[in-house]
Order: sequence, then structure tokens, then C-alpha cells
Amino acid sequence: MDVYEKSLKKHYEWAGKTEVALRAPIESLDDLALCYTPGVSRACTVIAADKAKEFELTRRHNTVAVITDGTAVLGLGDIGPEAAMPVMEGKCALFKAFANIDATPVCLDTKDADEIVNVIAAISKSYGGINLEDISAPRCFEIEKRLKERCDIPVFHDDQHGTAIVAGAALLNALRVVGKRIDSVRIVINGAGSAGIAIAKFFLDLGANDVVCVDKCGVLCAGEDYANPAHVEIARLTNKRGIRGTLADALRGADVFLGVSAPKIVSQDMIKSMNAGAIVFPLANPVPEITRDEALAAGAAVVGTGASNQPNQINNVLMFPGIFRGALDVRARDINTEMQRAAAHALSALVSDKELCADYILPNPLDKRVVVAVAAAVADAARKSGVARK
Amino acid sequence: MDVYEKSLKKHYEWAGKTEVALRAPIESLDDLALCYTPGVSRACTVIAADKAKEFELTRRHNTVAVITDGTAVLGLGDIGPEAAMPVMEGKCALFKAFANIDATPVCLDTKDADEIVNVIAAISKSYGGINLEDISAPRCFEIEKRLKERCDIPVFHDDQHGTAIVAGAALLNALRVVGKRIDSVRIVINGAGSAGIAIAKFFLDLGANDVVCVDKCGVLCAGEDYANPAHVEIARLTNKRGIRGTLADALRGADVFLGVSAPKIVSQDMIKSMNAGAIVFPLANPVPEITRDEALAAGAAVVGTGASNQPNQINNVLMFPGIFRGALDVRARDINTEMQRAAAHALSALVSDKELCADYILPNPLDKRVVVAVAAAVADAARKSGVARK
Repeated sequence: MDVYEKSLKKHYEWAGKTEVALRAPIESLDDLALCYTPGVSRACTVIAADKAKEFELTRRHNTVAVITDGTAVLGLGDIGPEAAMPVMEGKCALFKAFANIDATPVCLDTKDADEIVNVIAAISKSYGGINLEDISAPRCFEIEKRLKERCDIPVFHDDQHGTAIVAGAALLNALRVVGKRIDSVRIVINGAGSAGIAIAKFFLDLGANDVVCVDKCGVLCAGEDYANPAHVEIARLTNKRGIRGTLADALRGADVFLGVSAPKIVSQDMIKSMNAGAIVFPLANPVPEITRDEALAAGAAVVGTGASNQPNQINNVLMFPGIFRGALDVRARDINTEMQRAAAHALSALVSDKELCADYILPNPLDKRVVVAVAAAVADAARKSGVARK
Repeated sequence: MDVYEKSLKKHYEWAGKTEVALRAPIESLDDLALCYTPGVSRACTVIAADKAKEFELTRRHNTVAVITDGTAVLGLGDIGPEAAMPVMEGKCALFKAFANIDATPVCLDTKDADEIVNVIAAISKSYGGINLEDISAPRCFEIEKRLKERCDIPVFHDDQHGTAIVAGAALLNALRVVGKRIDSVRIVINGAGSAGIAIAKFFLDLGANDVVCVDKCGVLCAGEDYANPAHVEIARLTNKRGIRGTLADALRGADVFLGVSAPKIVSQDMIKSMNAGAIVFPLANPVPEITRDEALAAGAAVVGTGASNQPNQINNVLMFPGIFRGALDVRARDINTEMQRAAAHALSALVSDKELCADYILPNPLDKRVVVAVAAAVADAARKSGVARK
């Protein structure tokens, strides 16, 4: 049985990967009177007089909704809300297992961006935070932006920012390995979808000066009239040298390649054409842009992929539990760029100078230090940037 | 410390009355690969090919959303989504404790009926059933009706139907005590809000022929031009004798009084004017229309209230766990009138002829037979009425 068959069998056995558990006992009529009517009305009255008390008197201080419309699920694409549920449940299980966050899945039966924004805004008062998941680009950018404006709790599209922050931490550590600086390296990102665009922006936030984005149509250049408004925007923010051409053209003399695109589209020749000390992150999953072995054989100095059975796994699970844990702990209104930068630095700092090497640039997802360190850094950054309420 | 103060203290200690628990272990990289990527994609693919499989491969077969807009919370009225949360959490705790249903609270930040319907329809694919809660009349009637049309999972407004079914079971048993028949007694219902109207309709469903509804404006009569369309409708369905006047007028020669209205508005004289063997259910909570002692002193034969420290507590907790348990067990598309009637009869049948007396017409809410009996009857009725999918 391969991992897919074994997983399916397990899914039938589990019949759901999370369930509800009681925190209040309900074994007597007295319990009922305290947990429910008539006693509960006092908690309602207290909150009605001071809404902030809701975070002390209910679970709202610890809940996150994992919300999708099913349009960009894993590598499967637009499979809809019903078929998306196993992924959303899995995400909720990880939130609980790694960060003790009470996460609940919401699978929307609409693909209209306006409706999605209105629905999520309408249910947002039920949760302490919202994790958007598997919503296709470019709709996801506008949806997240509008929800961040409307909601006073954090709204975070993990496919964008979780990926970006972990990739950022991986980059910072890979640069330490090869002895280069983020502000002077040439970075090429292939795939200008939700992850690629967020990664490009985040690398600029981290101090990168030379980032080039490539999509199916080639290198994205300012001034071009792309159908996708997100491509127009990212082209304006990147590619300062104004280069043109294909992915192969962009990779010539580059220091860093990151792929969030398609299988097997990077050749060994392309890697050879990069600078010495090349950092290669082919993250397409399950089949990467180039395999780790091929990249290493072509001279790459540091290789990271999405695979759990290879060194340097660049996986969002290193980020979303800790970043929400930190945000919830200080009741942050938002997960802003300061918090994201702090998270990337905290994650990279978990690899000591002594341990750091080409095959170890990120902690293992099961490393219990990760959530603690990321949450602490994020909470601190939230307070310093004025978005913490606790 | 009274029950309200003690409850508030407990709410601060609990910091939430339910939480999420894992059903799938997440302790190794192998666990991650089965519960999440890459293994989970197989479950998604199976559901994409056959949506019904979602109920076997995820928790959707056992989840209920408890949804409010905060406009009619307990006796507190329109207190909004934040202040409603303790009640919704409490309801979820009861669903879990009594029926092992994984219930999750949703507090909507909108009061517009159209928006409420659209939002709930959009999130409905996340759950196995929807329990509407504390949504004010008369909006709640239209909202429930439209959602039942749009959703293929049960949508059930407990304040309407849970109350009606338990009151129905209480009535059936009280009639056994006093030796009268439902098709010949005169029933007066005071308070034509969400509960009162649902109770009137349900009593007619159970076989009552003489039901009169009274509201603040007096006895509801067909042909009157009430501002509230629900009053126009119920006036048409009830009051066949076409009586007019006040509550006192209606109670003269009545056999049954049920109040879902306001405190202390029924006098002992009104009870005395009822027929011998009067059944009196003053359900206003926490202060009833008339106290149990006063009603008994005025000659009532059977008295039931909402209070947990008095005999014959008429409380929805006797219904909502079992009715949803039965509906979920057979993956019913709806909780229809056949299922509701079956639930009322199953609940009343739990009181044997031997045990039945004026002070014992309903089981205790903690009686473990209740959910089992109600669920079985409801599942059976679902199958017989063609709404079961399993």
C-alpha cells in the first residue's frame, strides 16, 4: 500500500480527523444551570456591556476558522467544497496538534469573490482568527485584502504567506551556508500564482533587491499589459534590471531559484548556468521543477524541496501553527509584515551556526521548539507594531 | 453566590466550554503524510468523484452548526453576536454531552434576513446539520423556510420546534393524567412569537382541533390585518370558534394554557375559570406567567414550567440532541413533521403508565434513555417518510 492508499484507508477508519471535546462538565442539573440556562445569561450580559470580555469568557481567544472555496486544493485544483474538506480537516488537526489552537473547517459553496468576502466577514465574529486556504489566484489577493480591512481579527492566507515566510527563513539560512547577502543576490521565482507573488514581496521585505518573477509567459516586466492584475503589480515591484525572456534566460547568473510552478521544467543546464553557490528551492509538489539529486549533480550548493523524506523540507506546517499561536496570545488585530518578518527570523535562528549546513537549513516540522519560538517572536512584533490588544 | 455569579466565575475558569480534540494521531512525519499532504489528496479525489463519500471520509456525518444572529438571546433580546456566544457554546456542549454530536457555534454579524440566508447557505456544505438559535420572530420563520429549500441537510430552528415538540410530549402525557383527548380539548397559547406559533402548529399536527393564540393585542382572529404576517397566518389556522377578546376571555372554559410570553400575566382567577383538570404550562423563563404554586392553589391539575428545580420541566434539551442524532444517523435531508411527531411520541412514551402522574409527565433531562429513544424514532420516521439517505 502506498501512502495514498494507506491514507484513504485511515480516513475511512477515522471518519473525521477532529472532533469536539467538553471543557465544562455536564453531569448534573446544577452543571446544566451553570453551563447553560439560567446561569449563562450573566456571561452574556457582561459581554454585552464590554465586547472584549468575549475573549475571556468563551473560546474565541483560541479559535481559528480554516476557510476555503475549494478552487485551488493541493495539486488537484478546483474540486469544490465537499472534496476540499479532508485537507481543511487535516489543517485543523495540525493547528491543534502543534499549537493547541481550536481550528474548525469551513468549506464555502460559492466562488464569487464578493460573496466570499461578505460571508467570511459575516461569520468572523465567531473566531479569533481566519486562515484562508486553497483559494485560487488572483482572486485570493483581493479577498484577503478586503477581509483584512473589514475584520478586526487576523486574516491570513497561508498558501501565500505561510509559504513565503518559511521560504524566507530557508533563504536566510541558505545564504548563511553559502556566505552571500540577501541584498546582493539575484533571485528568480518561477510561478507567479498566490505563493510566488507572496514570496516575491516577502523576499523584498526581507531586504532582497534583485527579484525576478517568471510565469508561463516568461519573465514578468513592468509596463506589460498582463490580463492578470497581480502580474502587472508584481512586475512593477520586481525585475529592476528590466530583463526579458524565458526562465532559462533569467537563471543565467542567478544566485537563487525558487519554483512554485510545475514539474520538471528546470533542466540541469539551467542550474549550471547559475552562479557558484546556487541556492535551489524547487517546491512544486509532489513532482518538483527539478529533483534534488539532479540539482545537486548540476552543482547546486543548497537544495530545499516540499518533500518530507528529503533534507530541507520547506513546508508551511513550520509556520501557520506558530504564527497564529503568537497572534492569538496577544489578541492581535492583524498578522502584519512586522510579525511575518519576525517569524521568518525566529524560524531561521532555530538552526544554530554549529548545526547549519547544506543539508540542514530548517528545523524538522516536529521540532517542538518551532511553535514556541515563532509564537514568542510574533507576539513581540505584534506588541511593538501596535496591533496587540493584550 | 447565586447561580448567575457562580456561572460567571466558571465561565472565566473554563475560558470556553468546548474545544477541538484529535481523532488522528500526529506524532511522526508518517502521520503527517497520512493525515495531510501528500496522502490526503486521495480522499479528496474520491469525494470529487462521489460527493456522498464526504460523509464517510470526514466528520461531516456528525457535525452541526449552532447559528445565531444574536437578536433574541434568552430573555435578553438583541444583544448581538459577541454576547450571544456563551449561549451558543453552551448549546454545543450539550449537543456533545448528550448526543455525541460535534457542534460548533457561529455568531453572525448581520441582521438582514437575505444576508443571513445567503451566508448560512454558503457555509452549509461544511456541516451535517444546522441548528438555528435565538433569531427573532418573525424573521426566523422566513429564514428557516428559505434555508430548508436551499440546503440538502437538516435546518432546524430549535426555539420554534424543539420547544414545540417537548411541549407536545408534555401535553400528550398531561392529557393521559387528566383523562382527556387532544382532539377535544380547548387549548390557549399566550405569546405568538417563534415558540408560540410553532407550538400552535405542532399541536394541530398532533391532532388538536381547538387552539387559540393570544398576543399582546389579544386573541388572534382570522381576517384581522396584523402588521406581523406570522400572526395573520396563525390566526387563519387557529381559533375556529372565532372568539375575540383578552387572554382572560380565552381562558374561560379552556382545558390547556401554555405561555411563552411574559412574567406574572396570568392570575389565579384566570386559572379558576378554566375547566376542571386544567393543564397549565407557564413557560416564561426565569419568571413564569404564573408560579407553579399559585397555579396549583387555583386548581390546576398538572403544571409544567421551564424551571429545572420544579417537577415537569419543559426544556428543549429533551429534544435537540436526540432529534439531530436521529437525523444524522440516517443522513436525513430534513427534519420534517413526521420526524417531529415521532420524536414527541417517543419522548412521551418514556413515561410509563405506572410512573405517570401529575408531578411526572416528562423524563429528567439527564435520563440517558431520552436521546436513544428519540433518535431511534426520528431515524425510523426519516426512513419511512423518504428523507433518509442511509
